[in-house]
Amino acid sequence: MHYFQYRNNELYCEKKKVIDIAKEFGTPLYLYSYRTITEHFDKIKRAFSCLDPLICYSVKANSNLTILKILVERGAGLDIVSGGELFRARLVKCPPKRIVYASVGKTEKEIKEAIDYGILLFNVESLPELVRINKLAKSLNKKVDVALRFNPDISSSTHRYIVTGKKETKFGMDIDSIKHIFSSWDNYSSINLKGLHIHIGSQITQAEPFIRAIKRVKNIMDELAKDGIYLDYLNIGGGLGIVYSEEKPQSAQDFADKVLPLLKGMNFKLILEPGRFIVGNAGILVTKVIYIKDTPIKRFIIVDAAMNDLIRPALYGAFHRIEPLRKRADVFEKKLSDIVGPVCESGDFLGKDRELNVKEGDYLVVFGAGAYGFSMSSNYNSRPRAREVLVKGNRTYLIRERETYQDLVRKERIVSI
Amino acid sequence: MHYFQYRNNELYCEKKKVIDIAKEFGTPLYLYSYRTITEHFDKIKRAFSCLDPLICYSVKANSNLTILKILVERGAGLDIVSGGELFRARLVKCPPKRIVYASVGKTEKEIKEAIDYGILLFNVESLPELVRINKLAKSLNKKVDVALRFNPDISSSTHRYIVTGKKETKFGMDIDSIKHIFSSWDNYSSINLKGLHIHIGSQITQAEPFIRAIKRVKNIMDELAKDGIYLDYLNIGGGLGIVYSEEKPQSAQDFADKVLPLLKGMNFKLILEPGRFIVGNAGILVTKVIYIKDTPIKRFIIVDAAMNDLIRPALYGAFHRIEPLRKRADVFEKKLSDIVGPVCESGDFLGKDRELNVKEGDYLVVFGAGAYGFSMSSNYNSRPRAREVLVKGNRTYLIRERETYQDLVRKERIVSI
Repeated sequence: MHYFQYRNNELYCEKKKVIDIAKEFGTPLYLYSYRTITEHFDKIKRAFSCLDPLICYSVKANSNLTILKILVERGAGLDIVSGGELFRARLVKCPPKRIVYASVGKTEKEIKEAIDYGILLFNVESLPELVRINKLAKSLNKKVDVALRFNPDISSSTHRYIVTGKKETKFGMDIDSIKHIFSSWDNYSSINLKGLHIHIGSQITQAEPFIRAIKRVKNIMDELAKDGIYLDYLNIGGGLGIVYSEEKPQSAQDFADKVLPLLKGMNFKLILEPGRFIVGNAGILVTKVIYIKDTPIKRFIIVDAAMNDLIRPALYGAFHRIEPLRKRADVFEKKLSDIVGPVCESGDFLGKDRELNVKEGDYLVVFGAGAYGFSMSSNYNSRPRAREVLVKGNRTYLIRERETYQDLVRKERIVSI
Repeated sequence: MHYFQYRNNELYCEKKKVIDIAKEFGTPLYLYSYRTITEHFDKIKRAFSCLDPLICYSVKANSNLTILKILVERGAGLDIVSGGELFRARLVKCPPKRIVYASVGKTEKEIKEAIDYGILLFNVESLPELVRINKLAKSLNKKVDVALRFNPDISSSTHRYIVTGKKETKFGMDIDSIKHIFSSWDNYSSINLKGLHIHIGSQITQAEPFIRAIKRVKNIMDELAKDGIYLDYLNIGGGLGIVYSEEKPQSAQDFADKVLPLLKGMNFKLILEPGRFIVGNAGILVTKVIYIKDTPIKRFIIVDAAMNDLIRPALYGAFHRIEPLRKRADVFEKKLSDIVGPVCESGDFLGKDRELNVKEGDYLVVFGAGAYGFSMSSNYNSRPRAREVLVKGNRTYLIRERETYQDLVRKERIVSI
C-alpha cells in the first residue's frame, strides 16, 4: 500500500498533484510520501506488538536525515553499517540505546565512535572483529554489548548481490565459530555477549527462508540456555520484499503470523531491521522526457534521470514500473520503448520494452524508488545529484537540495604541476 | 606501460614508495602517475602526428580538474558529455574550440551553456536534438557547428553495457537518418554541418571493429563528396582497450598503422576521443586490510575500499589485478581469497579467488583504477569518497580532499514535519 495514486489520470502523492511538485522543484526529483513511510513502520510495529520489539530502520536503504528523524520520533531505532551512518543517527538525535551496528568491515575509528556514543549492540561479523572490539573497549575502559551475527546458510530467491545468508558470503559466522566464541568467552573481558543476529538478504518475498533461519538461530539459543547462557536480544534482521512488478510479497501481518509462534514464550527482546519494506514504495523518481528518439529498431524515451540517479536497473537488473505522471487521453501512439538517461553507456537505462504514450516534455514516474535509489546515486558523467522532496498531506518539504556544478568540484584542487 | 612498478618487493609510483603515500594520505586512496598520463597522451599524439589530429580526452573516464589541466596544457581538447563536464572544462580554461560535446540527452540548459562558451562541435545523436540545437541557436542569434553521430552497427567484444556502436543502442543515427538530414539541410539555418562522429564502445582491444566502422563512415563521406558536400571533421571516437588482466590490446602505434591508411589524403581534421587509454592504467586504488576472515568455505580479505569507491567489479564483472603494496618475503600462507569491502551486500567485492599473502593492516593495490574508478564512486552506505593524489617524480600532490561526514549531509535539511 502506498499513497501514490492516479485520480483522473493524474498522479497524486497524498493530496498533492505530483506534476505541480515536479514543476516547482524541477527534475530529476526523488519524492517521498510521509504517510506511506509512517504507515509501513506502524504496520510492522502493530504486527509484532505482542513482543514489543525494537524496530531498527535500516539506514542504508534511504539515509535522508528528515526520513530518519520521522522514524526515530515515531519510536524507531536505527540499523547502521558505517561511521557515516552513525553520524547521521547522531544528527537526528537517535537515542544510542536504539542503535545496532552491523558491517563486516568496522574500522577502529568507527568502533571507537560507536563505543563513545554508547550504542545498544555491535552486530559482530567475525572473530577478528570481536577481538578488536574487545581490545578497543578495554583501552577505553568500557564494557561493550555485542550480538554475534550468525550466518544460517539459507538460500533465498533474490538477486545474488543481495543474498547475505549463504555460507559463501562474507557475512556473519557459522555455528562452529559461534560455539567456539561462547566456549572461550573468558578471553573477551570487555564485552558482554547479549544476543544473536541474523540477516539473510534483501527483497525476499516468501516467509519460508526467514522461518528456516529463525529456527536455526533459535536452536542455538536453546543450546546456550541448556548451558545456562541466556541472551537478552534476538535480532532477526530485515529483508522483507516489496512489490516492484508482479511480486506477491507477504504483508507485515502475514510475516508476523508465521514468525511469532516460533518466538513466543522466549525471554528476550526482539529486534527487526526493515529498510526497503518501510521506504521502498514510499518514494518515486520523477523525470522529464528530453527527447523521443525513434530508430529503425526501437523507440528510446530519453529522460533527464540516469543510472547515476538510480543504478538498480543496471546493477541488479531490477524492474521498476514506469508511467507518465499525467496519463494522456489523446492516445497518439503507444510504442514499445526503452527509457534511457543521458549517460554515455548502454548500461544507462531505467526500463526496457515498456508501452508508453508520451511526448517530449512530458514527465514520467519511476515507482518503487524510495529504497536504494538516492542512497546509491553518484556524480557519474559529472551529473549533480537530484533533489529530494517529502510530501505530507498537501504540504511539500524540500529535504535535500539539488547539487550544483560547484558542488561537483568542492573537494578538488587545481594544482599547477 | 605505466609507472607503478615493484622494486625489491615494494610498489613505487614513479619515484615514490606507494606505502609512504598511503601512510601520509590514508586509505582508501586513488593514486595517479603524472608520467603515465602524459606518456599515454603523447603516444597517441605521436602515432597520429602525420594528420595532426585534435585529441579530445574523454572527461567521463576521470574528471579530476588537475588531470584535465595537465592534459589541456599539453594540447589536448576535451570530449564532454554534460553541462557538469563543460563546467569542469571551463574551470581548467580549455579553449572552447577544443571541446566536442556528445550525449543522447543534452538538455536546453546544457545546449545553451555550450553555445554560450562557443564549443567546437556538438556531436548530435538524434533528429530531435538537431531540431532543438537549431532552435536554440536561432534564439541566441548564433550559428552553431555540429557533427552527426553515425551509429555504424558494429559489434565489438566488450561488456554489453559499454557497447555503443550497435543499432540496438541509444547512440547515434543510422545511415538513412543521416542522409535524410543532409537532404533536408535547408531546415537547419542556424547550424553548420561540419563533420561526422562515430564511437563504437569502450575497452575494445582489437583494431578490426574500428576499421569496419571507419570504412563505413568513410563511405558516407565519399558519397557526400560526390554531392559536393565536404566535411571539415571526422571524429573516430575513443574506445581503445587497456590491460586489466591478460588482454593484449593494440598499442597506439599499431592502431594508427591500421587506421591511417584509411584516412590519408582525405581533407579533414581528425578528432580522437581517448579516455581509458590515457588514464586507465595511470591510476591505482590503494586500500588497507581491516580484517582477515576465514570461513569454512573461503577466506575473505576485508579492506577499507568498497563498491562505492570502485563499482566496476560489481557492475561490469570487471577484473582488476590486486596485489600487496609490499610483497612479504615471509610467506606465511597463500590462500585463495575474495577481496571485499565493508558495504552490506554481496555485490561488494573488488576481486574473487585471488592468491594473496597478506595480514591485517597490510595495504593492497587495485591496478587499472584510473578510469571509471573515482568518476563512478558514490556515498553508498554513507561512506565519504576517497582522496585523490597525483605523483610526479618524487613529489605528491593532493588533487581531491577526502570527503568528511559533514560533506555527506551538506545538501540535506532536517525538517520538522
